[in-house]
Amino acid sequence: MADPAAPARRGRPGHDQADVLREAVALFNAQGYDATSMGDLARELGLTKSAIYHHVPSKEHLLGMALDAALGELTDAVEAATGLAHDETSAYERLRALVARSVEVLVAHQPEVTLLLRVRGNSPVELAALERRRWIDARLADLVRAAVEEGSLRDDVEPLLVSRLLFGMVNSLVEWHRPRGDVDAADLARAVTTLAFDGLHAARPDDLRRRSRP
Amino acid sequence: MADPAAPARRGRPGHDQADVLREAVALFNAQGYDATSMGDLARELGLTKSAIYHHVPSKEHLLGMALDAALGELTDAVEAATGLAHDETSAYERLRALVARSVEVLVAHQPEVTLLLRVRGNSPVELAALERRRWIDARLADLVRAAVEEGSLRDDVEPLLVSRLLFGMVNSLVEWHRPRGDVDAADLARAVTTLAFDGLHAARPDDLRRRSRP
Repeated sequence: MADPAAPARRGRPGHDQADVLREAVALFNAQGYDATSMGDLARELGLTKSAIYHHVPSKEHLLGMALDAALGELTDAVEAATGLAHDETSAYERLRALVARSVEVLVAHQPEVTLLLRVRGNSPVELAALERRRWIDARLADLVRAAVEEGSLRDDVEPLLVSRLLFGMVNSLVEWHRPRGDVDAADLARAVTTLAFDGLHAARPDDLRRRSRP
Repeated sequence: MADPAAPARRGRPGHDQADVLREAVALFNAQGYDATSMGDLARELGLTKSAIYHHVPSKEHLLGMALDAALGELTDAVEAATGLAHDETSAYERLRALVARSVEVLVAHQPEVTLLLRVRGNSPVELAALERRRWIDARLADLVRAAVEEGSLRDDVEPLLVSRLLFGMVNSLVEWHRPRGDVDAADLARAVTTLAFDGLHAARPDDLRRRSRP
């Protein structure tokens, strides 16, 4: 039974803007943004080119929407981690939570984050995305520095290097993690934070005092 | 004074095969392998196309040489780590040394490793390179498993996930490390192994017993 209050589906069957965007991101990732035309996208969706332009004004507009989706989530995560009052949670706890949240964002938005990580700055949309990535990177480096300063993060590796390696590891997930694969986002987040903060060495309690300051 | 025993430089000035290969790898990384023609390469080197073919039979041959350079070094590092007699060094020590050595190989051969990490299997040369990468990945996972079994590596993260995250972090260097930049290869190798094996948490000796087994 059709709900009479639901918006009627008239004429144009099947696709909405979200479908067009999803297919565009998949094509951009598979064959490269520059090598993908609006004609390719129309063919892939079984639409005419003019039907595509009914949904979205340009290819660059699709790229912008995809990059905004990834950057919006990552920016929210960074703001949540850096905006908390300092006397409630330590910088260490906020950094560790941010790494975990970044893994979850990456798993939930893997196609858009993959696209974001390949942006090289060839257009105003790409340059704006790179600018927002730099803002995020600077906040991460600040948080690492704050954790070193409060004494909870080791101080023998340069903070900028720490933030690059940490998020290099997180970002590397796009290379091998398969959506709906064998690893769940929460398990993955726990694995990444365990490796990065606790380390892989399986020290027994007796060994720890010995190896902590060589 | 010219050494009369040295091979004479006749006619063709300047370039040898190594120069051609270096320029080819730089172009492949900058604009994509598929989008680069032998004509582009000739122009970049200030040579005619026929002069390029004097040095190398095909574009795919250049790709093969570059990938072999990266894979050869990485394979040697893996063989050195997995070939050592087990009673001389622990799997933990061999894994830690292999991670450090991988960082050094990546820094020394950054353009070739960058190219290798972008290979998607579009030709027989690329498929052969992917096959060799899979062999390396399987040896890394074996070594992680051996370190878990000997009790020196934590057993609460799945070994395959550990090897993916470890080498995901190493490979991420190609995204931001600048050759002859501000970080030296040995420092970088130490930072990566410290983060991965010892962890970022700056535990004081008194805290360690408490946090080691929550």
